[in-house]
Amino acid sequence: MTLALDAAAQDLLFREARTANTFTDEPVSDEQVQAIYDLVKYGPTAFNQQPLRIVLVRSEEGRERLLQHLAEGNRAKTAAAPLVAILAQDNEFHEELPSQLPHFPQAKDMFFSERSVRESSATLNGALQAAYFIIGVRAAGLAAGPMTGYDPAGLNKEFFADGEHSVLAVVNIGKPGDDAWFDRSPRLAYDQVVTTV
Amino acid sequence: MTLALDAAAQDLLFREARTANTFTDEPVSDEQVQAIYDLVKYGPTAFNQQPLRIVLVRSEEGRERLLQHLAEGNRAKTAAAPLVAILAQDNEFHEELPSQLPHFPQAKDMFFSERSVRESSATLNGALQAAYFIIGVRAAGLAAGPMTGYDPAGLNKEFFADGEHSVLAVVNIGKPGDDAWFDRSPRLAYDQVVTTV
Repeated sequence: MTLALDAAAQDLLFREARTANTFTDEPVSDEQVQAIYDLVKYGPTAFNQQPLRIVLVRSEEGRERLLQHLAEGNRAKTAAAPLVAILAQDNEFHEELPSQLPHFPQAKDMFFSERSVRESSATLNGALQAAYFIIGVRAAGLAAGPMTGYDPAGLNKEFFADGEHSVLAVVNIGKPGDDAWFDRSPRLAYDQVVTTV
Repeated sequence: MTLALDAAAQDLLFREARTANTFTDEPVSDEQVQAIYDLVKYGPTAFNQQPLRIVLVRSEEGRERLLQHLAEGNRAKTAAAPLVAILAQDNEFHEELPSQLPHFPQAKDMFFSERSVRESSATLNGALQAAYFIIGVRAAGLAAGPMTGYDPAGLNKEFFADGEHSVLAVVNIGKPGDDAWFDRSPRLAYDQVVTTV
C-alpha cells in the first residue's frame, strides 16, 4: 500500500477510466457540472490565476456552431454526446488577480502586464485546470472524451468574439455507451520517463 | 451525493490538499515515485503522446545545479524539500508514437513532422500530465509544491543539453512541515467560469 488513495478511487480516476467515444443518452445536469467544478476548482495554479473558462454547449444551435469547426472524425461522436464542454483559457485572467490573490495583488502588474506572457502562463495553467476537470468528470462517475482536433482560430472566433480567449480542448461528457473505447494503448515504462540526477 | 468519488478521496486530492512551502525531513522513496507514476500514467493525452519527462533531483550536486536557476524566492524551500522533481516536455515525443499508438502509427508523420507543432502539442499535453502528477503526489499522501518561477532557458540547458526538452514546472515533494501554507486563497465562482450556449 504505497498510495494513500483507496483502490476504488484509483480505479475510478485512472486505472479503469477511459476516454469515451460513444455515450448513452442519459443527460448530464448542471448540478453535476457544478459539483465537478466545486471539487476541481481547488487544484493549484500559478499565482492562483485560474485561467480556465468553460462553455457548456446545450442548445441545438450551439452544437451546430461547434461541429462545423471540429475535425471530420470528431463530429459524429460530438453530435451524439449528452453534453459538450469547450475549455478555454482567458488571456485577461490577470484582471481577477487582485480579488483572487489578496496577499499579493501587485502580481497583476508585476508579472502580467504583457499579453504574450499572459498567454503562455494561461496555456500552462489552463491545461493544468483542464486535467483537473477531466479528473473531476471521472469523479462524478462520468466519462470524458477530450479532443484537440478542431480549427482553433475558427472555434475561438465562433465562441469568443472578444478575442481574449483561446480554446484548449473540447470535451464530450456522459455515461459510456456501446463499444465506447479502443483497447487500452500502452504506456511508457517508468525508466523511459523518469531519470535521477 | 452528486459525485461518485468518496469524500475522503475528494479531501485528499482537492479539498484539503494544499501547495506546500515547508516539509518535514521524511524522505520520499523511489518506490513512492514509481507508485505515483504507475497510477497517473493512465491519464489521457492526445494521440497517447505522453510527452512528460521527469528528472528527480537527489544528489547534492544536482540540487545546486537546480537552485541557481530558480527565482530567489523559491530557493530556500527547494533546498530544504525532501525531493524535487523537474517536469519537462519531450519535444521529440513523436519518436515513441509507433510503439505507443499501435492502431495509428502513421500519426507520427501525418501530424508531428514539424517541430513547432510538436512543441505546442507537448506543452498542452505535458501540462495535462503535470496536473495528473500533482494529483498523484497527493494520492500518495504527500504534498506537492509546484513552481514556475525559474529561468527556463537556463534550466533547459542545465538539465537537457540535447535541446529537445522544455521544463514545464519544478515540484517540491514531501510531507508538509510547520506553517506549510498560506491561508487558502479564494476561487472564482461557478458563474464567473462557466457559461452555457
